[in-house]
Amino acid sequence: MTTEQLIENVSANKVFAGWQKQYRHQSHALNCAMQFAIYLPPQVSNGEKVPVLYWLSGLTCTDENFMQKAGAFRVAAELGIAIVAPDTSPRGENVADDDNYDLGQGAGFYVNATQAPWNRHFQMYDYVVNELPAIVEASFPVTNKRAISGHSMGGHGALTIAMLNPERYCSMSAFSPICNPINAPWGKKAFTAYLGKDQSTWKKHDASELMRQATRFVPAKVDQGAADDFLTEQLKPETLEAAAIVNNYPLELVLHDGYDHSYYFIASMIEEHLRFHAAYLQK
Amino acid sequence: MTTEQLIENVSANKVFAGWQKQYRHQSHALNCAMQFAIYLPPQVSNGEKVPVLYWLSGLTCTDENFMQKAGAFRVAAELGIAIVAPDTSPRGENVADDDNYDLGQGAGFYVNATQAPWNRHFQMYDYVVNELPAIVEASFPVTNKRAISGHSMGGHGALTIAMLNPERYCSMSAFSPICNPINAPWGKKAFTAYLGKDQSTWKKHDASELMRQATRFVPAKVDQGAADDFLTEQLKPETLEAAAIVNNYPLELVLHDGYDHSYYFIASMIEEHLRFHAAYLQK
Repeated sequence: MTTEQLIENVSANKVFAGWQKQYRHQSHALNCAMQFAIYLPPQVSNGEKVPVLYWLSGLTCTDENFMQKAGAFRVAAELGIAIVAPDTSPRGENVADDDNYDLGQGAGFYVNATQAPWNRHFQMYDYVVNELPAIVEASFPVTNKRAISGHSMGGHGALTIAMLNPERYCSMSAFSPICNPINAPWGKKAFTAYLGKDQSTWKKHDASELMRQATRFVPAKVDQGAADDFLTEQLKPETLEAAAIVNNYPLELVLHDGYDHSYYFIASMIEEHLRFHAAYLQK
Repeated sequence: MTTEQLIENVSANKVFAGWQKQYRHQSHALNCAMQFAIYLPPQVSNGEKVPVLYWLSGLTCTDENFMQKAGAFRVAAELGIAIVAPDTSPRGENVADDDNYDLGQGAGFYVNATQAPWNRHFQMYDYVVNELPAIVEASFPVTNKRAISGHSMGGHGALTIAMLNPERYCSMSAFSPICNPINAPWGKKAFTAYLGKDQSTWKKHDASELMRQATRFVPAKVDQGAADDFLTEQLKPETLEAAAIVNNYPLELVLHDGYDHSYYFIASMIEEHLRFHAAYLQK
């Protein structure tokens, strides 16, 4: 980190005795201006450094959805955990885009694109794994203990990023993740565009493939709504569960009757996820 | 209630073991189609009837803001309280409107308009006091125990509606309410448009006036952020507090350092409001 990496505060709201703030900065990885949100729990006002949960959102989301809708701050304040929510893709007039919601801006899929026109900006893997934590750890009173979670496309991102970097994350979790993108329409479309037609490059970003082959484990919790419209075609938690069983991976996966793909499901379960992560972050 | 008063379900999301649902219906009071949201806690699945908290939102809001952002369902589920959130005004192409956010659609101010062009549809007082509770109580497993709360313009609505109908509400509360609209720009503008230039008609809808003159009391809780940009010019909680002191009105009013006018403040305090109302609803 150098001081050139300036971040600009653009909003601040007190919530549950802590602060939810938004920052803008120029991203080197993404080659554009980016915005992220951070929740700083009240413990930091007492001079404490706190661990960080990174939250990766789903298709069409920005840094704001989780902060406004998840209801996470009560328990984050209690446990003393900061939460960082990046945007879901590079943004801007000069950034490549697509008319559909599931490709381009708002749909970065947490990979490094190798294919034109996407490769100029769509390097979300590098941004989330390296650049953003470096900025956060240089700018805020946080430790380098990290956990990672996300929803849908962001659940895919959280699981794959943690399994590709087990030394960097204490724990991982996901709500309704895309568990097997190489065999699902959203994943196939995005990976074809960003990574190209050679499917051998896709497996590195498939949570089920990674879980089946992992040799170093990151404790994992996944919750899925049984009434989720995307369950069968896009999400495929059964594939992840099968991989965990084959490899004896420490995965807690629960299917919940009646819950759908919305933030109402996330809000209902976020406390359990925060407590799960706290157990590993505080070790 | 007659069976002609049909309501149409337009969405349903399971949340905290209960259900958040949206309904559309033709409003007789407002002379247009309206949408409202209801949270039904898990107790109703066991055949219980539950009391209802009516939530009135602020300027620009719809039936959705509170449901998505307040984080109220965990405690509502625990306490067994339904929550009903109406829209903030009549809506539609044929409904009068204004280019500004603080008049017309999204800004009904919970009064019955007497002035053209507003009087054709803007009868939000009748809708909230009479029509909506009749529909809710005929359509859902709820009791006729009611509490009422709201934010900003909706805080004004909650306090004035409860004080004008003390026999209908067990308790009232508000976040950042417009406490003295007859002396504040938002209130003066809306009351001039909806009620006319004769200010004697305005006092009936001013919480501070009502609190000073009340003879039958509704237990009241008001929370206000000290960093709220609208505090001094628009909200004036000191006027409400002075009225309560003069009349010995049972008002708990607290100013909270650092909190602003946003839903982050509401989310931080909603648990206390729900527990406050539960104490009276369960008597």
